[in-house]
Amino acid sequence: MTPVTVVTPNPAVDLTYRVDRQRIGRTVRVREVLRRAGGKGLNVARVLHTLGVEVLAVQPLGGGAGAWVAGELAAQGIRTDSVPVEGETRSTVTVVDDVEHPTVLTEPGPVLDAGTWAALCERVRIRCAAGGVLVVSGSLPPGAGAGQVAGLVAAGHEAGARVVVDVSGPGLLAAAAAGADLLTPNAEEAREATGAADLEAAVHRLLGAGARGVVVSRGTAGLLAVDGQGRCEHPAVPGVAGNPTGAGDAATAGIAAAWARQAPPEVALRWAAVLGAAAVLRPSAGEVDPADLPALAARLPGLPAPLQPFSLPVP
Amino acid sequence: MTPVTVVTPNPAVDLTYRVDRQRIGRTVRVREVLRRAGGKGLNVARVLHTLGVEVLAVQPLGGGAGAWVAGELAAQGIRTDSVPVEGETRSTVTVVDDVEHPTVLTEPGPVLDAGTWAALCERVRIRCAAGGVLVVSGSLPPGAGAGQVAGLVAAGHEAGARVVVDVSGPGLLAAAAAGADLLTPNAEEAREATGAADLEAAVHRLLGAGARGVVVSRGTAGLLAVDGQGRCEHPAVPGVAGNPTGAGDAATAGIAAAWARQAPPEVALRWAAVLGAAAVLRPSAGEVDPADLPALAARLPGLPAPLQPFSLPVP
Repeated sequence: MTPVTVVTPNPAVDLTYRVDRQRIGRTVRVREVLRRAGGKGLNVARVLHTLGVEVLAVQPLGGGAGAWVAGELAAQGIRTDSVPVEGETRSTVTVVDDVEHPTVLTEPGPVLDAGTWAALCERVRIRCAAGGVLVVSGSLPPGAGAGQVAGLVAAGHEAGARVVVDVSGPGLLAAAAAGADLLTPNAEEAREATGAADLEAAVHRLLGAGARGVVVSRGTAGLLAVDGQGRCEHPAVPGVAGNPTGAGDAATAGIAAAWARQAPPEVALRWAAVLGAAAVLRPSAGEVDPADLPALAARLPGLPAPLQPFSLPVP
Repeated sequence: MTPVTVVTPNPAVDLTYRVDRQRIGRTVRVREVLRRAGGKGLNVARVLHTLGVEVLAVQPLGGGAGAWVAGELAAQGIRTDSVPVEGETRSTVTVVDDVEHPTVLTEPGPVLDAGTWAALCERVRIRCAAGGVLVVSGSLPPGAGAGQVAGLVAAGHEAGARVVVDVSGPGLLAAAAAGADLLTPNAEEAREATGAADLEAAVHRLLGAGARGVVVSRGTAGLLAVDGQGRCEHPAVPGVAGNPTGAGDAATAGIAAAWARQAPPEVALRWAAVLGAAAVLRPSAGEVDPADLPALAARLPGLPAPLQPFSLPVP
């Protein structure tokens, strides 16, 4: 029974290949290989773990790549409950040089059969704490859709947890229809999933479909939060530049951490803003340095007192 | 004790990513992933195994990728004696679409420490059969060079095996200096390693450095074989078109198979030509279909009678 359970339906080995120069149609020698356990849910789990929040990472893993991910999570001290699958956990390859924009090659990942989905839901039912939080985050495996996402949301609710969902496409609408407590899409995902022309309309369609709340990370424009009670815009930490990849995942982790501590909504948004900014400062997605948090929180003047996003870990 | 032992110093997981269209600086969805155990030595081992020649594959393997290669070789029924290494066995990623030439991204692979090299040599000394063949084939891991290649050649000779080496760069000259029984570079590798302007000069430099023989695959121009006794040009099988990747490895396998059966040199060259052609017919590198061999051999009229490259496996 853990305060926060994170399901990553389609985890990955994220590879970064540094090359002298990207070229199509040639043999290109890779100078340096960085390898990390990826998938948005694992980013969320990593940030929570860094903050000292007790977290359990639940994911399907298969083959040599899956074994590598399991080993990596174990080395980082993140508790896991993985469901074995046939086939290889996917890889993503990001090719970088000093000239062009990075190229990202994303494998689809293995198809999960009905038994695997049932096992993931069962893990959620058993391991989620009543009063805790379930986060479902990241791309879905090929062939998965509304039914699978709805099943995970229902499993979280059966366990008595609040459920946060960050998936794109039809899965987002399915999560809304299943009554997810919070959706955390980015603006593009919200519009794409609903077909709405602007963000406000998209958010209201998600609420209309059944979501209890929606928080959208809008980068430097800050967070937009809407639920049945009302609407709130929370500013981003000003003057933060760096790598935005994974900032949304850190923000989601902030909300999950606040919820796991039964903190009020304004604290959750504040943590989301501060942790999103902290992730931007780090070169690698899904990382924050707790030492950065006090200074970032102090740059949000006029808002409620710091509320200790930076005093984590707490007992 | 096996007739043919193949050392692959830097094996790989060879990934082929099919995409709609290659693009630099974008996120590109991979439609299909093909995964195979790669490295030139493993191609040689796979061809020998397909022919029914008893072969042992010796290689360093590490991490999840190494475990995948081990599992793949086991599934194919290829006997292995792998040396565990720290770090991940490398991957190569070939990106293909229907428009551009393929792009190949090659990871460097893990550095092997002195203990690992010693273990590889020890495996060779123990497992090579007297009168058998040792093949050392493929790229060298980062940091490895003349000393490591010479060590493997010496280990093969200590075991009483004949040693065939197909490595590029300084390793090729080192193999010559160590008295390798045969080098099988392609024309470019032979010129590059020796600095010679033309192929004949390059071959004579390799012999002058100490190699007992050199066989160069020249694609449709056929094989050039030179040793202390003389010089022989063997024609390629005419009219064969397809995928030349791995054809040289199949030719090397043909020579190793002939040597393992104590066949005379002209048989070795004939098998090399027929197997190289058979590999060209297959879409995947390092594969031959034994059913293709009789027809290919029959297209080499005026040469000594078929000599059964296609009657393998023999007892």
